[in-house]
Amino acid sequence: MSPQLNSVSGFEKLRLIESSKLFQGVVIAIIILSALTIGAKTYDVPPLIEQSLLVLDNAITLFFLVEILFRFGVCTDKKRFLLDGWNLFDTLVVIGSLIPLDNSEAVLLGRLLRVFRVLRLVSVVPELRFLINSLLKAIPRMGYIALLMFIIFYIYAAMGSMFFASVDEELWGDVAIAMLTLFRVATFEDWTDVMYATMEQYPLSWLFYITFIFLTAFVFLNMMIGAILEVMSEEQNAKQAQKAHDERDEIARQLQAVQNQLAALTEQMGGGRRD
Amino acid sequence: MSPQLNSVSGFEKLRLIESSKLFQGVVIAIIILSALTIGAKTYDVPPLIEQSLLVLDNAITLFFLVEILFRFGVCTDKKRFLLDGWNLFDTLVVIGSLIPLDNSEAVLLGRLLRVFRVLRLVSVVPELRFLINSLLKAIPRMGYIALLMFIIFYIYAAMGSMFFASVDEELWGDVAIAMLTLFRVATFEDWTDVMYATMEQYPLSWLFYITFIFLTAFVFLNMMIGAILEVMSEEQNAKQAQKAHDERDEIARQLQAVQNQLAALTEQMGGGRRD
Amino acid sequence: MSPQLNSVSGFEKLRLIESSKLFQGVVIAIIILSALTIGAKTYDVPPLIEQSLLVLDNAITLFFLVEILFRFGVCTDKKRFLLDGWNLFDTLVVIGSLIPLDNSEAVLLGRLLRVFRVLRLVSVVPELRFLINSLLKAIPRMGYIALLMFIIFYIYAAMGSMFFASVDEELWGDVAIAMLTLFRVATFEDWTDVMYATMEQYPLSWLFYITFIFLTAFVFLNMMIGAILEVMSEEQNAKQAQKAHDERDEIARQLQAVQNQLAALTEQMGGGRRD
Amino acid sequence: MSPQLNSVSGFEKLRLIESSKLFQGVVIAIIILSALTIGAKTYDVPPLIEQSLLVLDNAITLFFLVEILFRFGVCTDKKRFLLDGWNLFDTLVVIGSLIPLDNSEAVLLGRLLRVFRVLRLVSVVPELRFLINSLLKAIPRMGYIALLMFIIFYIYAAMGSMFFASVDEELWGDVAIAMLTLFRVATFEDWTDVMYATMEQYPLSWLFYITFIFLTAFVFLNMMIGAILEVMSEEQNAKQAQKAHDERDEIARQLQAVQNQLAALTEQMGGGRRD
Repeated sequence: MSPQLNSVSGFEKLRLIESSKLFQGVVIAIIILSALTIGAKTYDVPPLIEQSLLVLDNAITLFFLVEILFRFGVCTDKKRFLLDGWNLFDTLVVIGSLIPLDNSEAVLLGRLLRVFRVLRLVSVVPELRFLINSLLKAIPRMGYIALLMFIIFYIYAAMGSMFFASVDEELWGDVAIAMLTLFRVATFEDWTDVMYATMEQYPLSWLFYITFIFLTAFVFLNMMIGAILEVMSEEQNAKQAQKAHDERDEIARQLQAVQNQLAALTEQMGGGRRD
Repeated sequence: MSPQLNSVSGFEKLRLIESSKLFQGVVIAIIILSALTIGAKTYDVPPLIEQSLLVLDNAITLFFLVEILFRFGVCTDKKRFLLDGWNLFDTLVVIGSLIPLDNSEAVLLGRLLRVFRVLRLVSVVPELRFLINSLLKAIPRMGYIALLMFIIFYIYAAMGSMFFASVDEELWGDVAIAMLTLFRVATFEDWTDVMYATMEQYPLSWLFYITFIFLTAFVFLNMMIGAILEVMSEEQNAKQAQKAHDERDEIARQLQAVQNQLAALTEQMGGGRRD
Repeated sequence: MSPQLNSVSGFEKLRLIESSKLFQGVVIAIIILSALTIGAKTYDVPPLIEQSLLVLDNAITLFFLVEILFRFGVCTDKKRFLLDGWNLFDTLVVIGSLIPLDNSEAVLLGRLLRVFRVLRLVSVVPELRFLINSLLKAIPRMGYIALLMFIIFYIYAAMGSMFFASVDEELWGDVAIAMLTLFRVATFEDWTDVMYATMEQYPLSWLFYITFIFLTAFVFLNMMIGAILEVMSEEQNAKQAQKAHDERDEIARQLQAVQNQLAALTEQMGGGRRD
Repeated sequence: MSPQLNSVSGFEKLRLIESSKLFQGVVIAIIILSALTIGAKTYDVPPLIEQSLLVLDNAITLFFLVEILFRFGVCTDKKRFLLDGWNLFDTLVVIGSLIPLDNSEAVLLGRLLRVFRVLRLVSVVPELRFLINSLLKAIPRMGYIALLMFIIFYIYAAMGSMFFASVDEELWGDVAIAMLTLFRVATFEDWTDVMYATMEQYPLSWLFYITFIFLTAFVFLNMMIGAILEVMSEEQNAKQAQKAHDERDEIARQLQAVQNQLAALTEQMGGGRRD
């Protein structure tokens, strides 16, 4: 065997390793270990353990770096590798982990980026990747509803900060704070406290809250119903309807054949008698 | 070309402008600018900026006035323009914006009407207009459920203010306040505080709250299920069922043709033999 | 015309009155008036108005009594009238209203029964009656789920009062109070306050709450999904499927006819040739 | 009749007893009695009643022991009896009840195991057993969604305890406590109190809460929609689609028969003329 062939088979071997269950399992295990070290750091641990956590952290960073380079090296279509969103995300997270944790200024950013290493679980487990993709697909569907919700919130917030700013500056001071307060009302979180405070000055202000709650609940409910219906009409009946259609097509084809046979028979008969 | 033809083509040119993407984009941008000025006014801004906001506000009011007159002038069917709900809404909001903001008495009303200019976004963006129309269509569907809910609230409020008015005048003083308190209970907002207070005097009053929560939750749940089902049976399967029906119709027609052919053949045979 | 015929036509006239839109409208108006007087009594009103409310109340009671007797008199099938749940309910409410309001002992019961007169709206408006009937039909469907929920609540309440009674006697004193507390937890109403209190003595008691919340939420969610599916499979596709089935039946019948025709033709041919 | 036949018929008699409505009813009644004694013990009862409750408890334990032995003795397939999850559960609960209640150390465990005797209701009533089985089937469907939810909670908890531990040690001290706090936020329970506290130090921390709420609500919503769709596509249309398919198959078979008849006729005709 020539050296070139040998190299190809070596490359193939590496590819086999990359797609093997064992390799995937090791990567997942390391990611979970990484998540555990992040969690462990939030506890008060003795200095010795803290030191070993730091060493472990560096080892994990190194492993991830080697792993991503290995994946890139093994990939045959380098361009496609770089354009894939999940690979890009993996690379960014790994590069972000290279920020040293001793530098006091960037330490928080470095720790934050290490937290996102847990998200690598999503990019490694295919089922989770599929789940995320299907969730992302659901976002544009909700675009205009979200815009409508925002308009409702904005109008009520503008009205709220116009009237109630004098009642409670902390809740209705400006339009941004008022929107946060309205979000609180929409989650029913102590919304009556907010209402009772404004009702002392504006006894009819319960109308403001009740209409707001009804509007948002109504829009939200219809959004949910719409989402259920849209997904349903897309996915559910498609296969079954196609099958029924195909079967009816088959019947129509058979009927056409019968008609053709009959026509031929009639022709034959007529011809036979004409003979 | 005659002056009349010239005028017609000029009119056509204006209509093209009105329906152009650029014109729509400019109007949307001005509406968003208008929303931002409304929001900006809720902050404490230096007098200079406040002055320029006022100027900007007047400029926006003028722009909206010109825009609505332009739309009206360009429209060929004036009567239909005036009867369209969205145009009427636009006109009212623009006219309302003409109330001067210096007049101290009407200042609040003027500012309130300016807030509703944000709603013009709905009348300008077709997708939002479509969304609102479909939401409006959902309202009558919920009419009788809403009436039933109101009856439940009214009966419980009457009972509540009858028994609990002596416990807490602020929560159960009269039937209107009691309904507001019950709405609070229905949103689970500190409802146990309300209950524990009345349970001190009426130890069995938890029955009142539990039955109320179950009743409203049960009716609400069934309303939601009903809404999902109604929309579904209307929209979802309509097209597909029509297609299947058409195909089956086609098959029935073909079968009829086969029968006719057979009848003709039998006739021919019988005739042939009779000859 | 004989007096008997005259009486029959008089009876018919009364029946026409009973089922006329006007009569229904008057009854509905009186019921709403009755509801308003009940509501008005919860306010502090001057003695004069209170006196007139009492007179109005008596007038309404009289009207209802006359109305129910009129309905009974006009009805042709007396037995069926008495067995109908709605009529029974109406009669009970009207009879209950006859309890005099001056008798200090029964005054509260009398007022309570007057509140239920508002429910007569349901028995008079056919759409509401239909709605209630369909809601009642939904109850047995939820029977076993409700039983399962009760078992979950009972077990957790027994455990809760076993362990936490020493922490807070008012919340976990006995199994009944513990169930009320658990219902509060299930509605997320200040449930963390309850949890934080028990976590001081039993640091792992968050497990108790989290598992309880997950269990009830999971069972509730599946109940809702089950309800949607059950109603759907029952109602929605029934008509459409029946139609498709009928059409396919028709096609099968036509095919049978074709086969019969062919058999006859073959017979004829064979016979013709045999001749 | 030989003694062996007699013994067989005796065995059959016992089996009939075991599957009789009466026997089932007695077992259910005893379970409910057992539940009531557990509930009664949570109240402060006079010593006499407490004594009789203890006697009753022992009697119930004995009954359950005899019942389970009877069931086992009557069962023909002993191996299958032992492998059935419900029987195993029953046996464990009954054996657990044998722990004496006077032994002060194991008393709590013994009482706890007695609570689970209420769950025997599920294993005895077939409808509840069916319900539980269908709920258990729904769990794997939610596996990956639950994993995704856990990842979201873990990342936010890590971030939260990283930034907010200095604000409130009790809420954000370590990653485990932070997850509990986030669960509280996800149930909207006084989440604004948590937010307002951290906003004093980190004014932009509302972003943390809003994104978390949106993410969890969005994932939860899509999970619910997904669950509805999955169950629907599985169960609902299956029967109906099968029926339609069978009918179309029947039609296709009939058409084939028509074609065969026609082919035979043509053959016959050709042969007839060739003669």
